[in-house]
Amino acid sequence: MANVAKKVSWSGRDPRDDEDDRAGETTPLLNGTGPGAAGGARQGPCQPAHHVSQETELPRPYPNEIPHNEKLLSLKYESLDYDNSENQLFLEEERRINHAAFRTVEIKRWVICAMIGILTGLVACFIDIVVENLAGLKYRVVKDNIDKFTEKGGLSFSLLLWAILNASVVMVGSVIVAFIEPVAAGSGIPQIKCYLNGVKIPHVVRLKTLVIKVCGVILSVVGGLAVGKEGPMIHSGAVIAAGISQGRSTSLKRDFKIFEYFRRDTEKRDFVSAGAAAGVSAAFGAPVGGVLFSLEEGASFWNQFLTWRIFFASMISTFTLNSVLSVYHGNAWDLSSPGLINFGRFDTEKMGYTIQEIPIFIFMGVVGGILGALFNALNYWLTMFRIRYIHRPCLQVIEAMLVAAVTAAVGFVMIYCSRDCQPIQGSSVAYPLQLFCADGEYNSMATAFFNTPEKSVVNLFHDPPGSYNPMTLGMFTLMYFFLACWTYGLTVSAGVFIPSLLIGAAWGRLFGISLSYLTKGSIWADPGKYALMGAAAQLGGIVRMTLSLTVIMMEATGNVTYGFPIMLVLMTAKIVGDYFVEGLYDMHIQLQSVPFLHWEAPVTSHSLTAREVMSTPVTCLRRIERVGTVVDILSDTSSNHNGFPVVESNPNTTQVAGLRGLILRSQLIVLLKHKVFVERANLSLVQRRLKLKDFRDAYPRFPPIQSIHVSQDERECMIDLSEFMNPSPYTVPQEASLPRVFKLFRALGLRHLVVVNNHNEVVGMVTRKDLARYRLGKEGLEELSLAQT
Amino acid sequence: MANVAKKVSWSGRDPRDDEDDRAGETTPLLNGTGPGAAGGARQGPCQPAHHVSQETELPRPYPNEIPHNEKLLSLKYESLDYDNSENQLFLEEERRINHAAFRTVEIKRWVICAMIGILTGLVACFIDIVVENLAGLKYRVVKDNIDKFTEKGGLSFSLLLWAILNASVVMVGSVIVAFIEPVAAGSGIPQIKCYLNGVKIPHVVRLKTLVIKVCGVILSVVGGLAVGKEGPMIHSGAVIAAGISQGRSTSLKRDFKIFEYFRRDTEKRDFVSAGAAAGVSAAFGAPVGGVLFSLEEGASFWNQFLTWRIFFASMISTFTLNSVLSVYHGNAWDLSSPGLINFGRFDTEKMGYTIQEIPIFIFMGVVGGILGALFNALNYWLTMFRIRYIHRPCLQVIEAMLVAAVTAAVGFVMIYCSRDCQPIQGSSVAYPLQLFCADGEYNSMATAFFNTPEKSVVNLFHDPPGSYNPMTLGMFTLMYFFLACWTYGLTVSAGVFIPSLLIGAAWGRLFGISLSYLTKGSIWADPGKYALMGAAAQLGGIVRMTLSLTVIMMEATGNVTYGFPIMLVLMTAKIVGDYFVEGLYDMHIQLQSVPFLHWEAPVTSHSLTAREVMSTPVTCLRRIERVGTVVDILSDTSSNHNGFPVVESNPNTTQVAGLRGLILRSQLIVLLKHKVFVERANLSLVQRRLKLKDFRDAYPRFPPIQSIHVSQDERECMIDLSEFMNPSPYTVPQEASLPRVFKLFRALGLRHLVVVNNHNEVVGMVTRKDLARYRLGKEGLEELSLAQT
Repeated sequence: MANVAKKVSWSGRDPRDDEDDRAGETTPLLNGTGPGAAGGARQGPCQPAHHVSQETELPRPYPNEIPHNEKLLSLKYESLDYDNSENQLFLEEERRINHAAFRTVEIKRWVICAMIGILTGLVACFIDIVVENLAGLKYRVVKDNIDKFTEKGGLSFSLLLWAILNASVVMVGSVIVAFIEPVAAGSGIPQIKCYLNGVKIPHVVRLKTLVIKVCGVILSVVGGLAVGKEGPMIHSGAVIAAGISQGRSTSLKRDFKIFEYFRRDTEKRDFVSAGAAAGVSAAFGAPVGGVLFSLEEGASFWNQFLTWRIFFASMISTFTLNSVLSVYHGNAWDLSSPGLINFGRFDTEKMGYTIQEIPIFIFMGVVGGILGALFNALNYWLTMFRIRYIHRPCLQVIEAMLVAAVTAAVGFVMIYCSRDCQPIQGSSVAYPLQLFCADGEYNSMATAFFNTPEKSVVNLFHDPPGSYNPMTLGMFTLMYFFLACWTYGLTVSAGVFIPSLLIGAAWGRLFGISLSYLTKGSIWADPGKYALMGAAAQLGGIVRMTLSLTVIMMEATGNVTYGFPIMLVLMTAKIVGDYFVEGLYDMHIQLQSVPFLHWEAPVTSHSLTAREVMSTPVTCLRRIERVGTVVDILSDTSSNHNGFPVVESNPNTTQVAGLRGLILRSQLIVLLKHKVFVERANLSLVQRRLKLKDFRDAYPRFPPIQSIHVSQDERECMIDLSEFMNPSPYTVPQEASLPRVFKLFRALGLRHLVVVNNHNEVVGMVTRKDLARYRLGKEGLEELSLAQT
Repeated sequence: MANVAKKVSWSGRDPRDDEDDRAGETTPLLNGTGPGAAGGARQGPCQPAHHVSQETELPRPYPNEIPHNEKLLSLKYESLDYDNSENQLFLEEERRINHAAFRTVEIKRWVICAMIGILTGLVACFIDIVVENLAGLKYRVVKDNIDKFTEKGGLSFSLLLWAILNASVVMVGSVIVAFIEPVAAGSGIPQIKCYLNGVKIPHVVRLKTLVIKVCGVILSVVGGLAVGKEGPMIHSGAVIAAGISQGRSTSLKRDFKIFEYFRRDTEKRDFVSAGAAAGVSAAFGAPVGGVLFSLEEGASFWNQFLTWRIFFASMISTFTLNSVLSVYHGNAWDLSSPGLINFGRFDTEKMGYTIQEIPIFIFMGVVGGILGALFNALNYWLTMFRIRYIHRPCLQVIEAMLVAAVTAAVGFVMIYCSRDCQPIQGSSVAYPLQLFCADGEYNSMATAFFNTPEKSVVNLFHDPPGSYNPMTLGMFTLMYFFLACWTYGLTVSAGVFIPSLLIGAAWGRLFGISLSYLTKGSIWADPGKYALMGAAAQLGGIVRMTLSLTVIMMEATGNVTYGFPIMLVLMTAKIVGDYFVEGLYDMHIQLQSVPFLHWEAPVTSHSLTAREVMSTPVTCLRRIERVGTVVDILSDTSSNHNGFPVVESNPNTTQVAGLRGLILRSQLIVLLKHKVFVERANLSLVQRRLKLKDFRDAYPRFPPIQSIHVSQDERECMIDLSEFMNPSPYTVPQEASLPRVFKLFRALGLRHLVVVNNHNEVVGMVTRKDLARYRLGKEGLEELSLAQT
């Protein structure tokens, strides 16, 4: 934008009558005097300067490319706007809608939630059935091969077959993720956390991502990696929700022309919460846990009706999964085993707990916290290594294949070395490997590897005491711990829930056995119960969820009695783990430098005020603005502002007068695209009217300004922003403390918060990055640097 | 306040230098020109007029005494302030506190929550044990008497004994409530809902209330009324929480000098949420349900840490109750039956449900909704009758005794007329009445009346098919329905949860039996399962909770599988019930004309703006104000404002200049009490400094202005409000729509929201009553009138 400083005469309140405004002038709003503006003369509170463009002279320089670390905040992420732009168009629409029409909207919301639940449930069924069949096929092939070679003595050939089989399956899974849709990697939970927090992660809720995610997770699990298929369900649910609620798909280029009312960030985010909850619900058969997950991770403003809808979607999801799977498994309409993973029924009569065991549970929580912290720390170093050296897709695929082959080899060696034979009778092992065991016996170590991790977890919970050799369990824990840690962060779609549970269940069971052995049976420790507590402790130590995880575990075990000890274990694990290092998801979010807003401002931040926190100077627009100025501001690539305060100058003084409204970049783009402006000579003409529909059709992918052609004549036209701007943006005075600003921003899910002085003049703007920058470090408040990466 | 209009000279920004201000003047802030102000000359945006004081000339007259109806909003309720007054004192304190000290505060919060849980659990134990023993004693006495007279034929004497026994017990319970603490009447749930919503109900969280509540509920249950002891637990938990968190008791006149940091509305309300959750948790053994109840009813801003603490308190509460009761019942440390009422374990293997039953469940939801609406409508008329005619305490006591006697008589007549005999062997009836049955048999109808309602509910759920005669069930449902309806709203402490469940369980079981009979057994309807669904439907139809009630029912049955049908039933009941009449609690809240804020503004209220909603003119104060003016404003009994915008006049113009802050009545009172002012002649002197402690010591019962003596000399002193006012109150522009204002107000739990114009000048104030006034009626938006009652 040109910084030419000329005095412009504005004639009072309605510049449309302003006929004496000279045509052809470049009319910046005010003389630029921001830090670094050359030749600025007069200090004004609201200025057309862009601090990002004047990089070198700013107090905080933004390096262009630096190695990732957690002391950075990326500027590349956009925010979602949970605040409706209440402009005249919107108000007119809302006023036109009568009570009955609102009821229709409400019913539509419920219908969408039902559809989200049904589709999420069906996707979960699909994953489950395909994984079961493909994995079964693989195990049969390998088992036949091993059985054939055990006696002949050429077992290294079996190993080779197993490793190649796994590696090639994983290769396919990794290739589609790395080359087609990298955002589908991992569990997707950090991404959904960010989305619900209000950060727009590119491509995260697209249909293509869903397809890659579903195929990827199937291939990862079938490829024998130490992963689960539960985490990705949350991401899948979220994509389904975003797709259905918008009534169209960009990937398919189809617009069904339905649910157009919901085409804005506010509504979409609500539905995505429901989708995430439905995903959790389908994964663990935990509808209440799903609701709490969504709330714990996402909701800033608790709304009763929204929560009910989320709950409804969750319930429908579990119910659908349950119905379909019960039909598939032949015992139609027995709806008692919901969820992809079902921990099986813990019978309370047999397995109560007494008050003396509580210190033991707390101790297990401590162990879980320490092991979880170790897991996270190792994964942190690994991730840093990956960010630095393994950023090319083909390297990522090779790493994934390597991990798959190593996993197979480790499994094979452990089975080979194990001499833990168990009688085959009475056991429910699906693919018993005899190997060097006597006839009628099978290798117990092999069951752990010849099973999807879900089944292994259930076995560890429910197998009768004595089913496992302590040595086997110890070796298994150790190996699986490192494998799972290596696997998380690979370029494959996979979750960390099940591997964590499996590690925990293994050491928990070992702990239970040892306890019973040490106390010579005086404490009769049921190994299954301790396996459950170990699983909770390990998972809690890694992901650090408490409330929702407690409820998920309660629902997955179908047991309310264990609620109290599980809660104790999870809280202890969280406290101990937090002492060392952050939770896994938060760690990865920080490594991505996402401007994530936590629940509260750092406790010691009362000394900061809005004045220190805000970005300044702010690019403002006049209520009636020259088109050329708007185009220049939007085209300025160095500043990528998305909201512009609209002001009006006071005719009597030289000061800029009060704030009148706020307009978004996306709205301006739509206005320019539809040529909503009048010639300067004919300001009294009425400019073209737009409808809300025009804005909704463009949502969410507004074209870039470069794609909009504005001729030189058009540049001199005037655009009246009055009816498109939000006339009542939320504001804070500049003396407000950071916690106060934070509270307002977080509670209302804002994207822009205008800071004004005592005369309601714009002095700055607070956005997400301004707040996310302050963090509570080990030595008190610390400030992150901003980076363009 | 005197309305003398004189021109006052204000000399610039800091009136402390204002030496030429004439002493002895009555200096109203501005000339009053509000509607009705006599002789007003100049229109200003911020005025010292009080619209309440000018009753007759206002557009909305406030009648002084009118019969209660639901189209009124009472002005007598104060609001709680969830917004911290961030004045200099507060900021200085927060800045002084370092990171470690904040951790101490956090630990204190957890300790308080643990104590809340333990004490709530113990209170629940106390109630349970006392009720069990006293009720047992009563049943034995009456049973012996009946047994004695059955053969002799003088059963009317037994009836008399029974009725007198009940009536006298209820009399005591009613007397203590009616004469000592009327707020302890009922279940307390509406009151706690209001408190969590932000309405201060006098006496609701006092220790005295707790004592009366506990004794009252014991006496009501022992007195054989159709009531439960679960609802009052929620109120009890809330009182315990309020008491512990403040570290003192006004009833006992003890201040333990601990937890002084928490002496403000924000913190107290958080703890009260935890207490309510702990109460639910103790009542139903439903910790998650408790958390959801608190959130559903109270939380406006969802905060993760707060929710964890609430959950912790709930868990501790269940655990305490569980431990103590298990010791009391002799099977120490068996922690598997939490809660005052435990619905017993529904064994899923035996009692699954199939998809074909879902329409039947929905139908039951419809029935529940209709019956619930009928219940509420009857209770509405009854309550109106009570408000009009039975408002004297002695009449209330007599009514309670009458109900007790009638309940006994109805029970007696039904037992007498019943010929439903069941074999005594194999049944677990505590007090079997033989009456006219054969030897070895007992009267089945008698079990329903010779039992606390909790036990009857469990019996209806779990007794094997064939235990009940359909005729018995039908009669019982009918009678109990009317008795429960008559009982709710009596001046006794009692809950409606259990009677509702009992009615529902009775007709649900009847429904199950009929179904099995009609389809000739082709649908094998387990009566227990249908009793559960009926109970859910009836309770849902009456109280209209969905999410939290679903979880409470799931947890109380210890069964996750029934989650989906219970949810369906509750939702159907809510939808059907809402079609006819509001939920019972909401109805009673409305009958009390409480300014209750719902979750969202009425959907069709976009046409209203802050300008139309706000109260105007507003009484403003200057930053440096004359003491006499402050005293006059506070003493003005006709206006009972609690927050005053602080403004500063612009020296150059005649206009009042921008808003500078907001100060509360309570703060002004403390300032006056501590004589924080300087003589007008010595404005340069530093006025006395107060500490936050001074404000906290006065919280929550600030003395009335009348108790503070201000001499004539002192009246002429000046008071500097700068460091005590909140310098950054939340504001909205006057164009903001009602939903937008509502959202800000509700999300942040505000008490005062200042409406400003484009120049940041005060034009009005939005308080709770301004927002609560608009409601969605049958014919669209309706506006309630305000009343002083």
